[in-house]
Amino acid sequence: QQFGKAHAEIDALQDAKNKACGATLYVTLEPCTFYGKTPACVNTLLNSGLKRVVIATKDPNPKVFGKGIEILKKAGIETKIGVLAEMAQKQNESYFKFVKEQLPFVILKIASTLDGKIALLSGESKWIDSKPSRDFSQRLRLYADAILVGINTILKDNPRLTCRIAPQKRLMKVILDCNLRTPLNARVLKNGDTLIFTSQRIKNSPQIDRFIRKGVKIIPVKKERNGILSWDEILGELYRMGIGTLLIEGGGEVASSALKARIVDKLFLFLAPKLAGIGLSFTDGIKLNHLNQAIALKKYQLRQIGNDILIEGYL
Amino acid sequence: QQFGKAHAEIDALQDAKNKACGATLYVTLEPCTFYGKTPACVNTLLNSGLKRVVIATKDPNPKVFGKGIEILKKAGIETKIGVLAEMAQKQNESYFKFVKEQLPFVILKIASTLDGKIALLSGESKWIDSKPSRDFSQRLRLYADAILVGINTILKDNPRLTCRIAPQKRLMKVILDCNLRTPLNARVLKNGDTLIFTSQRIKNSPQIDRFIRKGVKIIPVKKERNGILSWDEILGELYRMGIGTLLIEGGGEVASSALKARIVDKLFLFLAPKLAGIGLSFTDGIKLNHLNQAIALKKYQLRQIGNDILIEGYL
Repeated sequence: QQFGKAHAEIDALQDAKNKACGATLYVTLEPCTFYGKTPACVNTLLNSGLKRVVIATKDPNPKVFGKGIEILKKAGIETKIGVLAEMAQKQNESYFKFVKEQLPFVILKIASTLDGKIALLSGESKWIDSKPSRDFSQRLRLYADAILVGINTILKDNPRLTCRIAPQKRLMKVILDCNLRTPLNARVLKNGDTLIFTSQRIKNSPQIDRFIRKGVKIIPVKKERNGILSWDEILGELYRMGIGTLLIEGGGEVASSALKARIVDKLFLFLAPKLAGIGLSFTDGIKLNHLNQAIALKKYQLRQIGNDILIEGYL
Repeated sequence: QQFGKAHAEIDALQDAKNKACGATLYVTLEPCTFYGKTPACVNTLLNSGLKRVVIATKDPNPKVFGKGIEILKKAGIETKIGVLAEMAQKQNESYFKFVKEQLPFVILKIASTLDGKIALLSGESKWIDSKPSRDFSQRLRLYADAILVGINTILKDNPRLTCRIAPQKRLMKVILDCNLRTPLNARVLKNGDTLIFTSQRIKNSPQIDRFIRKGVKIIPVKKERNGILSWDEILGELYRMGIGTLLIEGGGEVASSALKARIVDKLFLFLAPKLAGIGLSFTDGIKLNHLNQAIALKKYQLRQIGNDILIEGYL
């Protein structure tokens, strides 16, 4: 369901009409109890004639947590909680993090060779992965609220950062650009919804006005000691704008710094079945003292996308 | 079957006794027609009472190629050729290469992180891969006739290079050691069957005698322009010693030089699901000008070994 539109249980009840009478409703998330963008679902359920509601997970939102279930019980509707809870939690993992930690769920997408290279030293990176992998990557954009890249990607590839599968989908385009080097005619600045995080010393630059006149939002954030814009501030700002899922698409510097700051929740690593030798890696900015500090990928899944290998896991 | 022992069809016929009369025999490789280490199989087949012989592949050995089939046909035994030929060829891939190209079949085994690292810059590499992967690697030694490492691996890990699953198995231990730095008390020199390839300028070194007295074979080969011992000469020598399958186990310099020289037939890449950042890669010695020169892995298979990923493919 689109954000702000009717929740799925309301749609389902409307489709079922009077067949809902005496029926069982299965939901992944506890029905909501408050009037937000839409009326509280639980009231519609009370008037539906349902006999039983099976709920996979309680809503982590403190405004709901358990209250929806209480209301159903008091109205004499049978409830069962926790069925396939883990799967449901995974399906709503962005929402759970957003509500519980008040931060966006961060996905990092990388295309690399089997020896960990995202480009040759010359910068040549077209193409590491194959067409089917690149098409699949577009699907990741479909589930994201914002997509983030570094200034080097803007200067090198001049990407549009749109969702080709659903061009009408609103996708916030976020650029990390310490020194405001984004060209005013960059493709990413067309069609609105662009946001540039820059360093605080840019605050009074006359350049800022030119971006603002183009409808581009500029947010100065502090630089960490290692010269990298503060991920804490960036994620905080994005959370306040309602970004539930942030997709980081690169390049190597941004990927390294996100991994190093341990802000990545989920990795989609597309491995092309080839070896590139010396080149740029997506972890060149990470230096460990011991192997036991290695960043572990948990609960990963393997699949083939075209001739590439997709490794999808949690960090 | 062990090299030099009775071929499998002879064993099978002995087990079957008179049940073989009127039966069909299925073999992956055409029965041999000459007296080598054992008598020609085809003669035993003629006297077995078999009605039909199904053969997956002709024997590529020019001493046999098609002759075995002819003899069976003339004797009135039905034959069918080419059933599951591709699978049978894969099963005997070492033999096919050995006979057709007069070179050993070369397997490269690597254990790396998802970002292509086999060790940290400090050299720390224990352990990149997990215990199940290391146990699986021992099974590769079971199918190899020789195992090869570089001098750095000897100096750093002091390995035994034995087959732990079958300690009685004869496995030639091969070291690439340009400057004869292998310590005389290295574990690899115990129990015989050790061979060191060194550079030709070592030829008259008094050190050589000390190795020879320990039963270690020393073979000087020429150095290529890039300072690496000639793989052509090494593989030629190993072929002449009857090595059908050579397993290269590292480290990074040897792996890079073998990949670069394009002498590797099959890669077993164990990927540990973790990221190590800056470190040593198994392709640090390879420098490409363009991505279209990348070394492609063909017909690869994916599987999980413990928590690691095994990618097995052809180069």
